[in-house]
Amino acid sequence: MLILKNIAHLIVDSKTVLHSVDLLVEGDRIVKIAPNLPVPDGAEAIDCSRCAVLPGFVNAHTHLYQTLLVGQRDDLSLAGWCDQVLTPPITALYGKIPPKERERFSYLWTAVGICQMLRSGVTAFFNMDINYAQDGMFRAAKEANVRGYIGLELADLFLSDEKGLRRDLAEVERLLKTYPETCVVTPSEPNLCSEAALSALSALAKQYGALIQVHVDETAREAAQCVSERGKTELEYLDSLGFLSPRFSAVHGVHLTKREIELAAQRGVTVVYNPKSNAKLGSGVCPIPALNQAGINISLATDGPASNDRLDMFEEMRFGAMLQKAALSNPKAVTATDVFAMATTGGANMLLLDAGELKEGKLADFSILPLDNPRLAFGTADLISTIVYCAESGDVRDVYVGGKPALKNGVVTGFDESAVTKEFYEILHRLLDEIQALSK
Amino acid sequence: MLILKNIAHLIVDSKTVLHSVDLLVEGDRIVKIAPNLPVPDGAEAIDCSRCAVLPGFVNAHTHLYQTLLVGQRDDLSLAGWCDQVLTPPITALYGKIPPKERERFSYLWTAVGICQMLRSGVTAFFNMDINYAQDGMFRAAKEANVRGYIGLELADLFLSDEKGLRRDLAEVERLLKTYPETCVVTPSEPNLCSEAALSALSALAKQYGALIQVHVDETAREAAQCVSERGKTELEYLDSLGFLSPRFSAVHGVHLTKREIELAAQRGVTVVYNPKSNAKLGSGVCPIPALNQAGINISLATDGPASNDRLDMFEEMRFGAMLQKAALSNPKAVTATDVFAMATTGGANMLLLDAGELKEGKLADFSILPLDNPRLAFGTADLISTIVYCAESGDVRDVYVGGKPALKNGVVTGFDESAVTKEFYEILHRLLDEIQALSK
Repeated sequence: MLILKNIAHLIVDSKTVLHSVDLLVEGDRIVKIAPNLPVPDGAEAIDCSRCAVLPGFVNAHTHLYQTLLVGQRDDLSLAGWCDQVLTPPITALYGKIPPKERERFSYLWTAVGICQMLRSGVTAFFNMDINYAQDGMFRAAKEANVRGYIGLELADLFLSDEKGLRRDLAEVERLLKTYPETCVVTPSEPNLCSEAALSALSALAKQYGALIQVHVDETAREAAQCVSERGKTELEYLDSLGFLSPRFSAVHGVHLTKREIELAAQRGVTVVYNPKSNAKLGSGVCPIPALNQAGINISLATDGPASNDRLDMFEEMRFGAMLQKAALSNPKAVTATDVFAMATTGGANMLLLDAGELKEGKLADFSILPLDNPRLAFGTADLISTIVYCAESGDVRDVYVGGKPALKNGVVTGFDESAVTKEFYEILHRLLDEIQALSK
Repeated sequence: MLILKNIAHLIVDSKTVLHSVDLLVEGDRIVKIAPNLPVPDGAEAIDCSRCAVLPGFVNAHTHLYQTLLVGQRDDLSLAGWCDQVLTPPITALYGKIPPKERERFSYLWTAVGICQMLRSGVTAFFNMDINYAQDGMFRAAKEANVRGYIGLELADLFLSDEKGLRRDLAEVERLLKTYPETCVVTPSEPNLCSEAALSALSALAKQYGALIQVHVDETAREAAQCVSERGKTELEYLDSLGFLSPRFSAVHGVHLTKREIELAAQRGVTVVYNPKSNAKLGSGVCPIPALNQAGINISLATDGPASNDRLDMFEEMRFGAMLQKAALSNPKAVTATDVFAMATTGGANMLLLDAGELKEGKLADFSILPLDNPRLAFGTADLISTIVYCAESGDVRDVYVGGKPALKNGVVTGFDESAVTKEFYEILHRLLDEIQALSK
């Protein structure tokens, strides 16, 4: 049992803050929230005076293998970036690392990414990654005690042949069987996948009841290409293959048409907002107010660390609000409350997870953020605003997932962060010259 | 004497990085940059292996008194924000604090702001503040060993009567005489000042050779109001009063016309880019590529802590680049190099200060940033990009201004940061309820 004592500010959800309460956890759930709860025998008690306790953030879309590529190249559009930065080194990687080291390497890049995310209060993340010993990624998330939803990013028209596709589909099915709770189905993008691949993945997702996530209408070029080649907009095309349901999330959605927005609303689809990545790649600005008006669930994400380049949900929230205000010349376009909801309940809804709010009966996924820093000292005036506009990765002291610690007093509990980081960069620096030579 | 030894990466300017060199400071200047310099007798030596050494950032526009108002209200346009959030409590302040406490209070809010800025590598800042015991502000900057350019923000049509104007003009002249190096002339905004006030300030600035800064064309409404009431665009109007020269900076410039851009270029005026503030208030997006094309000097700023709400030049740089890429749907619109130049040479140019680059003969204004953090570990691939997109306030270890420390091993040297912070918030919390009641 775990009890948070003297919580100065308990953020129930984006609209409700309680003051001076305690919170009791039994097993992986919050069982009681009230002032002055007695500390049960044997319970661990954590003092939360002068702290805010926040629902855990969901980083709803990332690609942690891109930790390999941070800082390699900027100022490219998505297509140019994929061609010049992403694909050559990633393709080369398959040959550069001895097979017996692969599981370790994928473990390491996932662990390095998780350390960064924990410091910004993330309790769950959704990751599309390359077909590269994915078991290492699941292992890192499990050891870190973070809810890591991980899928193999399929792009058979881009990266593989027919034999490769058969091998990848078999691997997806193996992973779905091995990690039934957190393995997800992730075709990269409609234009990058054959219809055979998409149909097979749609069937697998149905069979295993898995969550599905696909890049949709990220750039105007992709949106137009789908219409031209498949005769349908991306979301309509995916719907024709049976993808759309509340288990489906459309990443980016920058160029969704009016009809696609209606369709997303009808099917209960989530749209994942990636403001910094969309901005950096010049992809455009996701039409958040229109999505809100249509009643669509919206989650928030950093995207991969090579197009952001940080995994900081606080910065993502404020950028997400400010970008809309700027794009629409309207300071009310998207508020702090809106983006806080995307990062919490929006993410939990996408994962069909009984979390995202701190209420009795909900999963005990939360972070603890001391408000002593002068940057945060106005917490009591409008706490959600202060957190959205002033907090940063590193301000979080503790992260608990299902009532168990993942970050405690700023220290990652699941593994030795500095050892993991050192090992990752040792392997990487062996490859760095080759990667840089390839990404020209 | 001071010598930086074994500098892993010395950022000379936005386009040049040297590796494995030493840097020798004598007095307030950099006198030698070369590998393996001997340590002179009695010199302090600082090990900079695994560190980047950066030219000091100039925060080219802020209002530190707004530390009083952080987190009070969001989602308002500039006009609504001034009317509802800014003016009532600020006006009330004059009566709330006993006169003998005023100098101390203004000292404290300046000190609190300086602590935040130092952590993001700021060595100089330009502050427009209220007429409230400004000596305290100059004192805080001097004690902190930061170049604090401070002006009294005049807005006589908005805030005072004729008698108040006479008193304020006398105060400006007193400050110009008392602080000849760093006192600046700052009419708030053409629409908020009488022509009598502007003419008097223009004359004072000429007489004392002072820098001048004015809010120009921040919102479409202000730009239109000036044309309607004064028969000229803001910059043309200010030019007709003799303001425009290389000593003049126009803050925001979001709605500059083509003719105003030509005029700014002709007169050698600086435009101050405030991307986050402009975004948050929905003011629009400053036309940076057009300003660049016209050859205008551009500096970068956070604006005040109530419309940002952080004083973090790293975040401001990346937001400044990303906002342009997003607004123009062009990933090349503004690069990491561009915004780094705005934060360094652009700022130094605005201040007519022989700094902004780390070269022999220049002022020794720099920060030291360790690259050990995994977020920054790719520093060697493209250091400027890594710093712009990945670094954050708090990553800076040391800040030196004119060869003397202002931040050393993360500790502010000029005063006791925690004592100053505690005292500021104690006074503030006495006022907070009243301020909140007034800003409704």
